Amino acid sequence: MKNLSSFVFILVAVLATTFSCKDEVTSDPANENQTISDEHPKLILTAQGVNDIRAQLGTIPIFDNTLAKVKEEIDAEIEAGIEVPIPKDYSGGYTHVRHKRNWVVLQKAGVLYQILDDEKYAKYVKDMLMQYEALYKTLPLHPKTRSYARGKLFWQCLNDSNWLVYVSQAYDCIYNYLSEEERNKLETNLFRPFADHISIDSPQFYQRVHNHSTWGNAAVGMIGLVMDDQELIDRALYGIKDLKLDATKKDDDGGFLNKDGKAGFLANIEEPFSPDGYYNEGPYYQRYAMYPFLIFAEGLHNVKPELKIFEYKEGVLLKSINALLNLSDADGDFFPLNDGQKGMSYYNSALVTAVDISYHYGDQDPGLLSIAKEQNQVLLDDSGLAVALGIKNGESKPFTKTSINLSDGQNGTQGGVAILRNENIELVFKYAAQGSSHGHYDKLSYSLYENGEEVIQDYGLARFVNIEQKGGGNYLKENKTWAKQTIAHNTLIQNENSHFNAKYDIGSQHHSVLHYFSSENENVQAASAKEPNAYPGTEMLRTMAVIKDEDFEKPYMLDIMKVTSASTNQYDFPFYYFGQVLQTNFEYKTKETLQALGSKNGYQHLYLEARAKANSDNSKFSWFNNNKFYTLTTVTNNNDELLFTRIGANDPEFNLRRDPALILRAKTTKNRIFVSVIEAHGSYSPVTESAKNSNSNIKKLDVVLDTEDYTAISITTINDNTKLFITSNTNASKEAKHNITINDKNYEWSGSYYFK
Amino acid sequence: MKNLSSFVFILVAVLATTFSCKDEVTSDPANENQTISDEHPKLILTAQGVNDIRAQLGTIPIFDNTLAKVKEEIDAEIEAGIEVPIPKDYSGGYTHVRHKRNWVVLQKAGVLYQILDDEKYAKYVKDMLMQYEALYKTLPLHPKTRSYARGKLFWQCLNDSNWLVYVSQAYDCIYNYLSEEERNKLETNLFRPFADHISIDSPQFYQRVHNHSTWGNAAVGMIGLVMDDQELIDRALYGIKDLKLDATKKDDDGGFLNKDGKAGFLANIEEPFSPDGYYNEGPYYQRYAMYPFLIFAEGLHNVKPELKIFEYKEGVLLKSINALLNLSDADGDFFPLNDGQKGMSYYNSALVTAVDISYHYGDQDPGLLSIAKEQNQVLLDDSGLAVALGIKNGESKPFTKTSINLSDGQNGTQGGVAILRNENIELVFKYAAQGSSHGHYDKLSYSLYENGEEVIQDYGLARFVNIEQKGGGNYLKENKTWAKQTIAHNTLIQNENSHFNAKYDIGSQHHSVLHYFSSENENVQAASAKEPNAYPGTEMLRTMAVIKDEDFEKPYMLDIMKVTSASTNQYDFPFYYFGQVLQTNFEYKTKETLQALGSKNGYQHLYLEARAKANSDNSKFSWFNNNKFYTLTTVTNNNDELLFTRIGANDPEFNLRRDPALILRAKTTKNRIFVSVIEAHGSYSPVTESAKNSNSNIKKLDVVLDTEDYTAISITTINDNTKLFITSNTNASKEAKHNITINDKNYEWSGSYYFK
Repeated sequence: MKNLSSFVFILVAVLATTFSCKDEVTSDPANENQTISDEHPKLILTAQGVNDIRAQLGTIPIFDNTLAKVKEEIDAEIEAGIEVPIPKDYSGGYTHVRHKRNWVVLQKAGVLYQILDDEKYAKYVKDMLMQYEALYKTLPLHPKTRSYARGKLFWQCLNDSNWLVYVSQAYDCIYNYLSEEERNKLETNLFRPFADHISIDSPQFYQRVHNHSTWGNAAVGMIGLVMDDQELIDRALYGIKDLKLDATKKDDDGGFLNKDGKAGFLANIEEPFSPDGYYNEGPYYQRYAMYPFLIFAEGLHNVKPELKIFEYKEGVLLKSINALLNLSDADGDFFPLNDGQKGMSYYNSALVTAVDISYHYGDQDPGLLSIAKEQNQVLLDDSGLAVALGIKNGESKPFTKTSINLSDGQNGTQGGVAILRNENIELVFKYAAQGSSHGHYDKLSYSLYENGEEVIQDYGLARFVNIEQKGGGNYLKENKTWAKQTIAHNTLIQNENSHFNAKYDIGSQHHSVLHYFSSENENVQAASAKEPNAYPGTEMLRTMAVIKDEDFEKPYMLDIMKVTSASTNQYDFPFYYFGQVLQTNFEYKTKETLQALGSKNGYQHLYLEARAKANSDNSKFSWFNNNKFYTLTTVTNNNDELLFTRIGANDPEFNLRRDPALILRAKTTKNRIFVSVIEAHGSYSPVTESAKNSNSNIKKLDVVLDTEDYTAISITTINDNTKLFITSNTNASKEAKHNITINDKNYEWSGSYYFK
Repeated sequence: MKNLSSFVFILVAVLATTFSCKDEVTSDPANENQTISDEHPKLILTAQGVNDIRAQLGTIPIFDNTLAKVKEEIDAEIEAGIEVPIPKDYSGGYTHVRHKRNWVVLQKAGVLYQILDDEKYAKYVKDMLMQYEALYKTLPLHPKTRSYARGKLFWQCLNDSNWLVYVSQAYDCIYNYLSEEERNKLETNLFRPFADHISIDSPQFYQRVHNHSTWGNAAVGMIGLVMDDQELIDRALYGIKDLKLDATKKDDDGGFLNKDGKAGFLANIEEPFSPDGYYNEGPYYQRYAMYPFLIFAEGLHNVKPELKIFEYKEGVLLKSINALLNLSDADGDFFPLNDGQKGMSYYNSALVTAVDISYHYGDQDPGLLSIAKEQNQVLLDDSGLAVALGIKNGESKPFTKTSINLSDGQNGTQGGVAILRNENIELVFKYAAQGSSHGHYDKLSYSLYENGEEVIQDYGLARFVNIEQKGGGNYLKENKTWAKQTIAHNTLIQNENSHFNAKYDIGSQHHSVLHYFSSENENVQAASAKEPNAYPGTEMLRTMAVIKDEDFEKPYMLDIMKVTSASTNQYDFPFYYFGQVLQTNFEYKTKETLQALGSKNGYQHLYLEARAKANSDNSKFSWFNNNKFYTLTTVTNNNDELLFTRIGANDPEFNLRRDPALILRAKTTKNRIFVSVIEAHGSYSPVTESAKNSNSNIKKLDVVLDTEDYTAISITTINDNTKLFITSNTNASKEAKHNITINDKNYEWSGSYYFK
């Protein structure tokens, strides 16, 4: 801390005495337009922004601290010397890691040169760029062959694009430090061929609507902005001119390369974002795609303000930041919808970019300042300055996450994701479209959280990102054989087949349909959606609610899955809990030897640990995890089975976690209503060794009515208090009036559901 | 906070104006001795102590806050009303929990009466005691029959004794508030019969050396001190007069009831504590036994100072507190040696008692103040006042835990426990005696921690203490069939049999023997011990070290297990790691179906997940847990097998955790040297998705010499730096001089080992 504050002090002193205008800033007003695009920096940092930042330095703690850390980091790198190795490795390997590090270092050194006005940073950037220039012109395709679009510095064009997105910024920062000759050399031998390789030479990567292409577009566009090259800028915005790809080809992940011919940055904004800002691949990839979307948008805003990029598609880029922040749990970790690695959170640097840009270019939401404070760093640019000033001026307010419904699809008509929040309980209900090549086959699935901790988990992806020992850090084959399959999720599986037979081209044609979303009543947060296509001939209508009731310690989850089918089927209905079995009201028998539950569609990865026959109208299962108690109460009949399973079968390289599930299995059934309540209750202290409220509060869960139009569930507590939840299966609009009689009693209400 | 500080303010104001001497404090100096034993309170609180406390109130934050919290807690109880239900349940059940709660409430209400001088607390205590008096005289034995010594309020005399230890204090606090008639009523119908039931009526519980008896002794003694009943006090100190029990009988846990006829509080101090203060059952039960030891000792100190109880056996009671604090990891959690539930820590209230008493009656170690600060509460008595004043006066210093060797056995000659600490790495090496009925069969076993997190775990007990759903909260049968067995521990298992055939009477006759302990060199913390009896005809000598070497990121563990046998055997050598398999240098084949590894001695609880043949001189296994990397390098030969196992087979009620292990198996072997290094290295961030230092730093681990007298191990890093560790297998005294030649090179040193 001492070093840091003295550094800031010296900095301010130095700046106060040595600050002078850059000679490229002309004061001729007649020439102003010309100046804007000629002056540098102009991309992310601007000349005016640099002036403002320098003026405030030493008085804006979060900015000053970020700057001091970056300076320390880059000074150490300069000390260690430049390394630009010949490309050789996959992700996680030495050359991969080094080039990845270099792009970060170059970008930061460039920024330090601008803010600190110290030539050593400019020289460092120049020297490294010259080494890249010398190397790049000698490079063939990267020697590793696994990618559908190989890069030159990296095994995939994607990473080459990452590099250029960052390095464009560095180049912009030292542009005026370089001689024209030096610039020509870099542009001719490095930047232009680099941009061409990831675009013209790699259309299967570049010319599509996909997060990969977004990086490619941004890379080409940003270097185009710096070089003032309109052809590159147009290629970035609209795709490679006059190029049409084979619409039937697929990429490594099984996604179509380019089904409808759309391409370019604008198309990449247009299609994957819904009007609510939901990104079709889910929050993990939204986070990944976010950086090129926003950083290129910031560059466009600065250099091409006439494009009004932040207003494009009714301001969807800024809306998407709000959506993404809402797709995180109480700890800021993103919900692992589709392919998502757990633990990724809004502490990721892409979210620093997102939060700062959203604050500065949006409407200065003071809630964003509280997230920025948690992130404890800001962008070293105009937006970071704005955030730092906001925090300094005490404008920060808590960022409050409430229930939210996010539509999916370009026009918001392809299903969506509903997040139900009630006190510390969060339920994520997915009724979205396929989610591109990173989508999982899990229509109407959900996961449940208590205070940021998983209660009923979504498995996430089967990958150890950047851990080289596990398949080079890339997707593992179990991602396809397990993680994407329906049985890996908390939804209905018919006849041990995945939804859409786990076929991407079929799944991509469909989406679930919102039935209703209701968050007006603070005690009852509810969402309901239909899925008619996952299993042809079978329709699922799932209604989920998180209900706060005075008879319960915490809000509980109510789940009503109504299945209507033309055929007789087996239905599996899993609950992926965590922790240890505490108690059941059914007698299970554990297996002497463990065998896989099935042979395909993910079932080959589940061991069957125990089996039971349901023997009462309600099957109850309590478990214990992280010193908290949970109970599932679910309506069953005597033909139902209950299976205790564990992931891990047919996993020859121990790629899967050994996580448990309870699966409710209904055999030879046509129509079925699955009704379940999950209570989070009580706690245990291993220090005092006392268990509080360790038992379920529910005596009886009953389906008192189930017709085409209505399903009514009664929930009776151990104190014999009964509540009734009636959901409207057909007409569920907010205005709809209902009047029905159940057991001679009349119920009248308007809206989607009744609860009393 | 507002309420709390205003409460303290009012309190001080009230006390300043209303304080008056109790009328039982006589001012006649001639009568002083008489007064001391006649006045009340005298047991834990003393009249003088109460005066001192009242004088300081409002100026001693940690004491004031504790008091405010206790007041809030007890006021709520008084508000809720008294409940004294007819006994009915096992641990965790309603009547059990209520009576347990009542003893806490009574003790606290008594203290509040003394400190706050508010009659409402005295009346509350009196009213509840009268209800107990009315109930107790009607009570038969508790209806639950599982205990070897049934109580009346509780299912076991142990809990009845807990009750009396606390309630004696409450009675002392309101003694003078009661009329003589009331006191007679309580003493005649409640306290004396209560004391008799847990002692004279339950000699199998009372008349032994065991933590149960310690509670019994303290209960009888404390009520004896309050009632000034010398017969009860003697019965407490020396056991039931003239009673000898059958020396061959056993208790519920398989322990002998009374093998050598010793009994009473002094015998219970004498025998289980070693001179270093190690308690033979291990830290979990020491924590449990600690409260009655210390609280009765405090009472004896106050009422019978002539006994000099804190100097008894060279001050072993206070030494034992230091030993116990050292038997905790970086988070303060006790190492789960023998039967120990994980998560029990020095935040337990018994440790508040221990820390405060140790500070006050010991030598005011300022390190204890820092633990008291973490505990954030103090005893509401003289010792708590002393701690509060120490903290207030800024005397607190960090409690530093370094490597420590704790001898076991009454005279410190029955093996022990060595804890090796080096930066954030802690290794617990157990070479102790059996540990009474709670002992496990794990001679020369170890567990390894990094910064308070388990790297190589000890399973602990198989019990969910006070969680009624799991076997009434009592020991589960898997505690015997799994947790106590040798294969559940990180040590050598010969021919799939447990040490001493898991027979308590054999195990109790033996202990391991310290070979050496060396902590002088801060880079090399080492301990070595022999076990000649666990398997007759086989001798194990295990030498363990935690070594800080500049070539490594963190200190690593070196383990040398030298096995010498007269017969040919199969040896299993397990490593109970946590997390996911990352990489091996051997090819394993996973099983299609999982079967138990064996049929008995704990092996019936292990599933075999995968099997491999060792195929090089070093077998390497890397794993990944909680975003950190670990690597085992172990010396193997081509006949060795490596087994991946998981706990959970033959577990019909899901009582066991599904934890993994790697087992090194040597078949048809006589003598064998197992040499292993475990490195903790690197880290992974799921936010930046970067893996640091994820690979082992060891290229080669070699046994370069192994004779009767010496074993020499060379450790070569990937940078080809080689270090040599030579351990002296015979003469290992600090003074011994050694001179040997290995591969033509001469090594000369003095002391237990050589490392360079």
